[in-house]
This record gives sequence, C-alpha cells and structure tokens, in this order.
Amino acid sequence: MASDTPAPADVEQRLRSSFERQRLMATLGARLTRVEAGEVCIEMPFDPAHSQQHGHVHAGAITSIVDSACGYAALSLMPADREVVSVEFKVNFVSPARGSHFVAVGKVVKAGRTITVCTGEVWALEGERSKTVAVMQATMIAVSPAD
Amino acid sequence: MASDTPAPADVEQRLRSSFERQRLMATLGARLTRVEAGEVCIEMPFDPAHSQQHGHVHAGAITSIVDSACGYAALSLMPADREVVSVEFKVNFVSPARGSHFVAVGKVVKAGRTITVCTGEVWALEGERSKTVAVMQATMIAVSPAD
Amino acid sequence: MASDTPAPADVEQRLRSSFERQRLMATLGARLTRVEAGEVCIEMPFDPAHSQQHGHVHAGAITSIVDSACGYAALSLMPADREVVSVEFKVNFVSPARGSHFVAVGKVVKAGRTITVCTGEVWALEGERSKTVAVMQATMIAVSPAD
Amino acid sequence: MASDTPAPADVEQRLRSSFERQRLMATLGARLTRVEAGEVCIEMPFDPAHSQQHGHVHAGAITSIVDSACGYAALSLMPADREVVSVEFKVNFVSPARGSHFVAVGKVVKAGRTITVCTGEVWALEGERSKTVAVMQATMIAVSPAD
Repeated sequence: MASDTPAPADVEQRLRSSFERQRLMATLGARLTRVEAGEVCIEMPFDPAHSQQHGHVHAGAITSIVDSACGYAALSLMPADREVVSVEFKVNFVSPARGSHFVAVGKVVKAGRTITVCTGEVWALEGERSKTVAVMQATMIAVSPAD
Repeated sequence: MASDTPAPADVEQRLRSSFERQRLMATLGARLTRVEAGEVCIEMPFDPAHSQQHGHVHAGAITSIVDSACGYAALSLMPADREVVSVEFKVNFVSPARGSHFVAVGKVVKAGRTITVCTGEVWALEGERSKTVAVMQATMIAVSPAD
Repeated sequence: MASDTPAPADVEQRLRSSFERQRLMATLGARLTRVEAGEVCIEMPFDPAHSQQHGHVHAGAITSIVDSACGYAALSLMPADREVVSVEFKVNFVSPARGSHFVAVGKVVKAGRTITVCTGEVWALEGERSKTVAVMQATMIAVSPAD
Repeated sequence: MASDTPAPADVEQRLRSSFERQRLMATLGARLTRVEAGEVCIEMPFDPAHSQQHGHVHAGAITSIVDSACGYAALSLMPADREVVSVEFKVNFVSPARGSHFVAVGKVVKAGRTITVCTGEVWALEGERSKTVAVMQATMIAVSPAD
C-alpha cells in the first residue's frame, strides 16, 4: 500500500496542519519531513532533555515519533472528513537509541474503511552510519471529528 | 507478584536515583510517587506542550510514563547489580487522554532471571473522577550496567 | 467491566452456539466452561498432538483458546445483532505450557460500540498446582454478520 | 538480516528435525517449505477442522504457523547448541483467512545473542490470487536445551 507516490497537495496540507497541532512534536523538536500516499517520515534531533537513565533517548520519545508517523501514514489514505486515532501499538526496541538524530517512518500495511494497520521503523543516524533502533506494528482507526 | 509490600529502602533509593537520570520524566513533569516491591506509580500533570492534534495528551507521552512505571516495577525485584531495559511493549488506548493529571501504575506479572513481564495502566484524573486511558503489556530485560 | 454476573440466558446460548461452530476448539478438545457478562472461561486438556518441539503445548494452541476466550468475553457485552472478530492480540509466554490441562480466561477491560479491549490469562493445572503460562492483551471489533 | 542465502545444510537439518517434533504442525497439516538464513516458510492447507465460527481458519491456527515460522527464522541464525522459545508476539488480522492454503513467512529483523526480533506475514492463496491475512511482530529468546 505504501508507495513512492507523493500524496496529493490537499492531503499533505491536511497532514501538516494536524501535525502542527501535535504540540508534543514541537516539544520533541520533531519535524514532518516526507508525506507520501501511505508513508510518512518524521525526524527528531538528539536532545538530552528526552533521555532515559543511560543518556540515550527514552523509549517513550522514540515511540512518540513513530506513533505519529504511523498515524499520519494511515490518515494520508483516509477521506478528507476523517481523523485518525491510535487504537494500539506494539514496539520492539532493538538497539540503544544513540545518535545525533532519529528518523521514524510509518507505512500502511492494510488500509480499511475503519481500521488501518501500519508498520513503523526508527533509525538512529550518526555521521554516515544508521541503525534500526525500534520497530512498531500499529492499529489506527478512522473517526469523525465529532467522535 | 505485585504487592503492598514497600520496597526495601535501598531498592527505593536505587530506583529514585535512576528515575532522576531519566530526563524525559522531568521534561514531562512526571514524578515517581510510589515504589513497592513489584509495583511502581508515576504521576504527570496535564500540559498542553505534550498534546496531540485534539489537545489531549499525546499517546507517546502516556506511553512514556507507563513504560517507566513498568520498567521500575521490574527493576524493583532485580538484584542490585542489574539494570533494566525495555525489550518491547504493547499499549491499547481506551479513552481520550483528557484530565488535569495522569497516573501510571506498572506491576510485575512474572519476574524471571532474565525476562520480566509487566502490565501497566494509566488513569486520567479530573476532580473526583478517574478513567482508564491506556493499558500496557510489557517485556523487560535485566542487563549488566556494562552491557 | 468483567464481573461475577452470569450472562443472560440468551447471551450464553448465543455464545455457546458460536463456540460450537469454531471447529478448531473441538479439534483442540476445548470446552466453554463459564460465561459471564464480560468474562469467559475455556478449558483444554493436554494432548501430545498439540505439542511444540519439547513436548509442551505449542504457543499457537495456547493462543487459540485465550483468543476465543477474549473474543467471547467481548461478544457477551455486544448487542444480539453483532458478531466479533479479532483485530489483533499480543501474548507473552511466561512459563512452559506443561500440565494436565489448561484454563484460559478472557475479560473485558473496556467495551466500546466498535472496539472492545480484553485481557486474557492461561493457567496450566497439574494436580493441586496451577501456574500462569500466558497473558494476552487483545483488541476485538464488533461486526455485522453481513460484513 | 533475512536474505536469499540458503541456510547451511546442518542448520536446515536441525530446523527440520525440530519442526518434526512440533506435533501441532502435523495436526494442522503444516509443512516446512523453505529454510534460509534468517527466513523460514511454512505452508498449511485449508481444513474445516481448524475453522472459527464463520468457517474461515481460526486466528489461533494462523498464529501457530507464523509463530513457528518466526521461531525457526530466529533459530536459523543461532549457534548449534541453542534452542528457541517465543517470549511474546503480536499479530494483526487484516483479512478473513479464506483460501485453499496459507503460507507463513518469518524473517529476522534483529538477531541478538539473547533476544531475536522477527516479523511474520501470512498469505491466503486461492487459485492465482494471494492476500495478506495476518502480520506478526515477535520476540524470540535463545535458551540452552537444559533451561
């Protein structure tokens, strides 16, 4: 379902407008860097203010960006009058979140009328090197703005 | 496994010292409010800086406090020379995270030598009312500080 | 949500009739032993035909009974014209599935119009002893029979 | 990590020997059809004896084959003196499990000394058509045969 197809301009604008209202993203320094039909990319710089006890990025901050990436990937394929909410997600943390910045990609695996299933991945970047730090499998639901 | 048994003083001190190094907790305004053997409680006030697009608390902030609560619940039952890392977790979001503050409780379901399984729950509080907003099932692993 | 309230007779009959159509349950020797409003119990005897490589019960057989227990717990609180389907579940296996028989309990954590969240647990029984072997967190959805 | 590299002959033999001891696989009619380094394929024919209430394959049977596929994918990269056990998994069911047979593929995402993370997918096949019915994200652990 995910693709290299750029999202239509109105979809991208709708996503960017919603992303700007997610104030946690600004608090984390996260930016929406790429919006395609069914695939969304979010970047976040390292900031010691978001660390866990060993100085790496806390699992919760990593989860925050990949949850938003999955949610917006789902929203990119929904009709214009729908909004998206996370039903649930599951994340495995496969390497310590060490790096100068972090890139989260969310992709739609299956888009349904009500339920959309996504996978997400987060990479830590440091100079030329990149390393997977987390993988997510998430369930999103389309809701009416009134819900 | 979880209980009303207060954690021994040295365990509580070890947890509090680790919690203070989790700078994301300070960034979120979160406090470690209760430490028992196998059960830990963390509170966080509502702050619009941690919101998602509808003004409720972002799933990632809710996840952050319940992940830490589960991790410290696991650590409270580990030998003094071990540290804890999240292998993975799964969270269901069952109500919008609306309230004046939020309480996350993490409890150990099964403590093993290597792997500890926990469940977590987050309540939103508003005046006299409280409501479950999220439930977690998490897998923690004991590591050596050198790992 | 789960309770000691017996399910109304028509609900119990509806669940039992659906359970009998789940032919995997008969293949596994599983029986629906208790139906309450929001809580359902399924038992399965040990059978070497359902083993994994060490002779214990395969994770997939354990998962089958606790998935059905959670699904029927969800269905027990739905209107009579709805059916239930598993959106997803997550299971931790906390002890080897060794015993003479196994009891799965599914409970509703949050019943919604569309989505119902459940937790499940499986115990292995051997003589007087019982031990938790698995814990589940599951998302169920109400569907129309026509869906 | 997963690849088109055939697993060394001794690894394949070790996996096939373990698979044959998983008697649930024979009960489900499942066969180990492909073993590569970090990727394993299992096929299962449709059988009404493994159905849920609507006559499709029960989520538990689908889970059984993709759990085994993920477990053996993990084992294919472990030293010869290790065995593999499922710590936990999470499965989304994205389409009804309808078809003449089902193919589960398990792939290693990250192989560690202790913990290996896998993803799995199950397709339903019917004539020329195939459709994804389930996606898994799983955590496996290397154990000593004595554990």
